[in-house]
Amino acid sequence: MADDAQVLPRVAGNGLLDRRLFMRTLALGAVGTATAGASLADPVSKGQPAWMLAPGATTEDYGTPSHFEMARTRRWTVPPAGQAATGRSIAAFTPHHQLHGTLTPSGLHFEVNHHGIPDIDPDQHELIIHGMVRQPIKLNVAALANYATETHNYFIECSGNSGRLWSDKPLAAHLDITHGLLSGSEWTGVPLSALLDEAGLEPGAKWLIVEGADSGSVSRSIPLDKALDDSMIALYQNGERLRPGQGYPMRLLNPGFEGNTSIKWLRSIRVTDQPAMTRFETSTYTDLMRDGKALQFTLAMEVKSVITRPSNANMLPKKGVYEVTGIAWSGNGRISKVEVSADGGKTWAEAALQGPVLPNMLTRFRIPWEWQGGTAVLQSRAVDETGRVQPTREALIAARGNGGWGYHFNGIHSWGVDEDGGIANVHV
Amino acid sequence: MADDAQVLPRVAGNGLLDRRLFMRTLALGAVGTATAGASLADPVSKGQPAWMLAPGATTEDYGTPSHFEMARTRRWTVPPAGQAATGRSIAAFTPHHQLHGTLTPSGLHFEVNHHGIPDIDPDQHELIIHGMVRQPIKLNVAALANYATETHNYFIECSGNSGRLWSDKPLAAHLDITHGLLSGSEWTGVPLSALLDEAGLEPGAKWLIVEGADSGSVSRSIPLDKALDDSMIALYQNGERLRPGQGYPMRLLNPGFEGNTSIKWLRSIRVTDQPAMTRFETSTYTDLMRDGKALQFTLAMEVKSVITRPSNANMLPKKGVYEVTGIAWSGNGRISKVEVSADGGKTWAEAALQGPVLPNMLTRFRIPWEWQGGTAVLQSRAVDETGRVQPTREALIAARGNGGWGYHFNGIHSWGVDEDGGIANVHV
Repeated sequence: MADDAQVLPRVAGNGLLDRRLFMRTLALGAVGTATAGASLADPVSKGQPAWMLAPGATTEDYGTPSHFEMARTRRWTVPPAGQAATGRSIAAFTPHHQLHGTLTPSGLHFEVNHHGIPDIDPDQHELIIHGMVRQPIKLNVAALANYATETHNYFIECSGNSGRLWSDKPLAAHLDITHGLLSGSEWTGVPLSALLDEAGLEPGAKWLIVEGADSGSVSRSIPLDKALDDSMIALYQNGERLRPGQGYPMRLLNPGFEGNTSIKWLRSIRVTDQPAMTRFETSTYTDLMRDGKALQFTLAMEVKSVITRPSNANMLPKKGVYEVTGIAWSGNGRISKVEVSADGGKTWAEAALQGPVLPNMLTRFRIPWEWQGGTAVLQSRAVDETGRVQPTREALIAARGNGGWGYHFNGIHSWGVDEDGGIANVHV
Repeated sequence: MADDAQVLPRVAGNGLLDRRLFMRTLALGAVGTATAGASLADPVSKGQPAWMLAPGATTEDYGTPSHFEMARTRRWTVPPAGQAATGRSIAAFTPHHQLHGTLTPSGLHFEVNHHGIPDIDPDQHELIIHGMVRQPIKLNVAALANYATETHNYFIECSGNSGRLWSDKPLAAHLDITHGLLSGSEWTGVPLSALLDEAGLEPGAKWLIVEGADSGSVSRSIPLDKALDDSMIALYQNGERLRPGQGYPMRLLNPGFEGNTSIKWLRSIRVTDQPAMTRFETSTYTDLMRDGKALQFTLAMEVKSVITRPSNANMLPKKGVYEVTGIAWSGNGRISKVEVSADGGKTWAEAALQGPVLPNMLTRFRIPWEWQGGTAVLQSRAVDETGRVQPTREALIAARGNGGWGYHFNGIHSWGVDEDGGIANVHV
């Protein structure tokens, strides 16, 4: 804890400090658990820990986290009752309260699998591109591996992410449950436009009907404009081949679009002049409005952010200067600004963004905050390069209602801090 | 295979094409395994594959690669004879010939462990900063977790990477053995400068003696200027806590410096006015010169690159246009240019760099190349923002000899292509 915290320059209410104070000039030590002084006169003499007394373990062929962390970071999987054995409709959540940076480890990437994970032999799998094309083509992994590739960092967010925040009652749950249907990765693959060029689009082509090789064939209709702009067939995630839960051996990736459109285990792209009205764009993944009608094809994910630390997974142990940090993202491009409030939205201060800020990717923000022991409500508000601003929860519900809603919640999230340093989800 | 390959504009000898041809304008299909035409009149009717006939597998708590890939990407570990049981002096190599992008999956990050991997309880582990400081400090993981953090992508390269390329005889080995002591990750942690500021440097401080909590306490001397510039205490790798083989629960990270200076399992930083001349900067990790003297503290890794595809892990199946791609890096900052030759260095063409190009990180390059069936020698040559140019192997050996050398080989690498499309390591 910095002794001079009381004279640090405030930039917004309830203790928010200038984001530049963290740029090597603030002698912080936020929580002051560093132990200084006489007891360290001979700081290395207290005896070796057990792990220094004999040679350590051998290297694994494929490394895994420490067993201390596996107990701590295991994510939640929530199969509906009776479906666990078949693997159907599982949602597995990324534990953002335990992660830091901008990437999600592939083993902790969120998954929503409607029909379980197919065990696909890559030498048997084929992708076909057909319909309104001059020449249908069929590609296996070996064929795709010889096309020109691209590498980009993209987030994927399920449109159901944060769906439980429509509820009137704040959740007693960690960030995995409230924001864990969101992950960020480096993806490498083949631009879809190159394959469509090769197949040759016929006049009148406007949509793609894309279909996975899972047993229920999740399928969606994708506007052709999107496919020609930046969609890719992803073959690698974070350097290695896709994991099975991410569509091995190949998936579609529509940057910034709701996650279910990025069809996993991709097997068919059919070019058409109209959408197919599949099950996953009619009975699910549509947005029921107040008047009983539903929006369809709400594809780009809206601007959004959340504070990942502090959170309800960790107390504030004592008064002092803390780093408030989180992630922001938008399906409409780059994040341009994130503001943080410590007084429930009355006043705001601009956070520092970790560069490089990339389009359609998670961006980490940070700002120092002095907690003086009183109550506080911590919020973050993101703005993207198109000028879209993350709305308050109240404004979002006023516009859309919260009756039948489950999708596309992008409201400002609130952490309530009590006088003991405890933290909880709150609505303000 | 593009039928019009013969009229594509050449930019260097033996088939190298303009890098911009891959920017959505070249209807390629490099190898033409796409199957077009009548057989696809009803392309989805041939029957469902086995994995579509029943619901798939459930989700793992912590995801792993496909079992098809585990057989293919298992990396090499080479314990010296008789030491496998104790885990000592293992080198595990990143299989760059099987990866794509710029990141290395944490489970495939290279490891050189001189005394095995200690099994450290993070709640028991402490880092001390002492020596020429006003106030020694002691920090555990919980304390470090409350400091201001930074996130950066950095490569780590062992100074012994490519050491076997000093040999007169080209190796019959894949890229793991020749270039696999190199990996790239996103690292998040605390700037070392903030901790040194808090401890308070005494006048005359010039070096840090840093030491790991492995049983043999690997230790190195680090110039204070480096530590104050950009060294960090890394706590997270690719979003999650460090893996045990990467120094869990905390490691030093000196961007661009030879890998062994980025001490894993960091337990002690002692501030001094001179280097310690530890075992790992005298008996190893020094560079024997022609005259029998040795260079010490050759810390920044030199500019370097290698073509990862095509490589001797994959044949060229037929004539046609291929993507030549690889990685380039420099411990002196950003890569500014990579050139590729298909005629053993007689002529060169500039490759496209995948952005964002980040300092001290792997940068992927790509260029299209038309193989017309003759012999070829593929090479890449990187230039960094300081103007350093990757030397030929011949020039490197002329300057330094290759007798006692094992470290800091950064010469241009050569893939020899024969008339059957086979590829091998060659010296030219």
